[in-house]
Amino acid sequence: MTHGPSDLPFSRLGARLHPPAIAALMNTALADPGMLSLAAGFTDTATLPAEAVAAAVAELAARGGPPEFLQYGANRGREGLRRLLAACTAVLDGLPAGAIDPERTLIGNGSQQLLHLAVAVLADPGDILLVERPTYFVFMEMLGGLGVEPVGLPAAADGSLDLDACAALIADLGASPRRARVKALYLMSYFGNPSGLSRTETEKTALAQMLARAGLVVPVLEDAAYRDLGFERPWPARSVLALEAFDAFPRLYLGTLTKPFATGLKIGYAHASDAAWFDRMCWLKGHEDFGTANFNQAILERIIETQQLERHIAMLRARYAAKMRALDAALERGGLREAGWSWSRPEGGLYLWLRAPDGVDTDGEGPFWRACMREHVLYVPGGLCLPAPVDRRFVRLSYGVLADDALAEAAARFCRAAKSMTAG
Amino acid sequence: MTHGPSDLPFSRLGARLHPPAIAALMNTALADPGMLSLAAGFTDTATLPAEAVAAAVAELAARGGPPEFLQYGANRGREGLRRLLAACTAVLDGLPAGAIDPERTLIGNGSQQLLHLAVAVLADPGDILLVERPTYFVFMEMLGGLGVEPVGLPAAADGSLDLDACAALIADLGASPRRARVKALYLMSYFGNPSGLSRTETEKTALAQMLARAGLVVPVLEDAAYRDLGFERPWPARSVLALEAFDAFPRLYLGTLTKPFATGLKIGYAHASDAAWFDRMCWLKGHEDFGTANFNQAILERIIETQQLERHIAMLRARYAAKMRALDAALERGGLREAGWSWSRPEGGLYLWLRAPDGVDTDGEGPFWRACMREHVLYVPGGLCLPAPVDRRFVRLSYGVLADDALAEAAARFCRAAKSMTAG
Repeated sequence: MTHGPSDLPFSRLGARLHPPAIAALMNTALADPGMLSLAAGFTDTATLPAEAVAAAVAELAARGGPPEFLQYGANRGREGLRRLLAACTAVLDGLPAGAIDPERTLIGNGSQQLLHLAVAVLADPGDILLVERPTYFVFMEMLGGLGVEPVGLPAAADGSLDLDACAALIADLGASPRRARVKALYLMSYFGNPSGLSRTETEKTALAQMLARAGLVVPVLEDAAYRDLGFERPWPARSVLALEAFDAFPRLYLGTLTKPFATGLKIGYAHASDAAWFDRMCWLKGHEDFGTANFNQAILERIIETQQLERHIAMLRARYAAKMRALDAALERGGLREAGWSWSRPEGGLYLWLRAPDGVDTDGEGPFWRACMREHVLYVPGGLCLPAPVDRRFVRLSYGVLADDALAEAAARFCRAAKSMTAG
Repeated sequence: MTHGPSDLPFSRLGARLHPPAIAALMNTALADPGMLSLAAGFTDTATLPAEAVAAAVAELAARGGPPEFLQYGANRGREGLRRLLAACTAVLDGLPAGAIDPERTLIGNGSQQLLHLAVAVLADPGDILLVERPTYFVFMEMLGGLGVEPVGLPAAADGSLDLDACAALIADLGASPRRARVKALYLMSYFGNPSGLSRTETEKTALAQMLARAGLVVPVLEDAAYRDLGFERPWPARSVLALEAFDAFPRLYLGTLTKPFATGLKIGYAHASDAAWFDRMCWLKGHEDFGTANFNQAILERIIETQQLERHIAMLRARYAAKMRALDAALERGGLREAGWSWSRPEGGLYLWLRAPDGVDTDGEGPFWRACMREHVLYVPGGLCLPAPVDRRFVRLSYGVLADDALAEAAARFCRAAKSMTAG
């Protein structure tokens, strides 16, 4: 009953879509059963809380009465969970209890859905979003689907924002005919993907001031997907919800319960400062699925209420700190620095962001990629994470999913591939 | 940290969105704690399989090894579940095993998400979709968001397609400058929402032939959300996947595990005949959420593997048959036919579709609506389910969620409201 590709006339959106660059690379690579992947942004499967989830479900089932947790929920999400999440974020930001409104909190199918809703209601094809360099590559793919152009904020060599260059870029945009095209700023400001870096309050405040000076008081999306995963300490900067410099900006703060608890439950959340933006996100969500799985929300509500989330996060922080150190040490041991590569040790998150020596092109299908394929090790080409101009000197490695011994072996393979480049 | 509606410039999509008509009605009505709702399309909470779900989760957790069911899954969905669903649909359609390709099966956050993906990649604002009269009102809302115009296929008084009028309409469209605007046909052909009616193979085949004659070999979406909920028997018509008349049409068959098992798990699925259409749906899903919750899929895989889905559906069919009879009998008892209302008894699904006597306008906020509010009973105004031309003579009542005694009481209230109209 199936047939091959038709010559269907797709919508403008449909015609803009294309296979994700990463999928093509992964599909080929993962056909090799001996491949070790430092590419996947998965969490550590061994840490996934099977017992806690099973216990929560058993408790929900044992409550008696009709099992409302298996019924449809509300489009916006479960009220109890929204209340808990709003309170958690307020604590992280040092805000008074009640400062974050559960009525302006939206639960989604991971924070990815909320990012998509947020941008879809703001930006048309041809519009511009300001992003960090590097930035989250699935977000970049999503912008491509929406026809939106990511414009990168200049970064210094250490990954911090180059504030002078940012000011110049923002002032130029504000004075250019493209000004009305600038629809939002997107920041992944806590242990970001792929950089592992965080933004200081100084950086964020400076951005707000530059934007205001340029007349670009645009919506701000702060993606805090990795905020809970600081190794030694939470990152001290408050979010844009709490920073006074952003008071005049419509803001959306995005969090998730996937990375800090269970990716397979796929629950994210967003807090909005702006009623009109929030409402449109909700209405679009109403068309897309009229509400995220109530069951998963009920489980997480129970997990948070009983302080199990906190305990799980404490365990994860130590675990990922150890895995980061293991990967970092294995790369050092493997002689990667001597081969001309550089990187810094992140203070949280799931990623190392490495810079290759001059002359090494990390793009998929290039010589370095092929060397890694021969060594059976997989990475994310940094070019996927970088808005224009093209820059092929970087690599993202994840220590999330592999077990410790596999991490060490993968690092050794990666180092061999790297050294084969400079040897050649 | 929050402020009121801004004057943000939204995208064209964002600007088209508006609050769902139904939400405004429901929010007001449900503030009344004594309200009985015959409006919600929820399933019967008492039948929701809490024990089966808890047992499945416990079994998954007890399997030993890393709990992959709590890890991210694939964008397209869990392979084992896709294989089971493809096999189930093949059986329903009398197709040989393997006739439906699990590689062209996509799992979504309910079938609603898959409907949205399917239409979003096909239709631009100003385009046309052919739909039944009446049709699924959330689908109509979604079309509104996409800027797509629903054009209704003429129906006979008994709810079957008026095939002569359909042929004329389709021939006219095919000959008109709007022809290139016609992007798809949407059918809810098994115990549909809101009609409760199903389409015969004769009706479906005739539609295919008319479309082909008019040069409109457009994509067909067959929404089979209620297919499993036939009371005495499965509806005998095969789906468009199996009917020869549709061989040349790109087809998407949509099923769900919400209505026949647990709405709170929010898992739907689609089988596609067309590779290009399917791929674009997958790519867009990659941007929206890169995969539905793997946990929920693992549970349902287990439930289907162990024949628990079949047993649950058998129980539900008997249960909804009894509830339909209870509502129907209570409306008869309440004198609704004597008050000039008419309806037929459906053979499956969750809804009664009633026609009011001439002169009664069922729209929200109208005199009949207000009479129902005074009686504390809620319904869905039929106008929400009808593409142009406006028709305010119908009402959708659901027997899904209310318990038997509440159903009888709600019916009595509805009848009193109806009689107050004719008495006045």
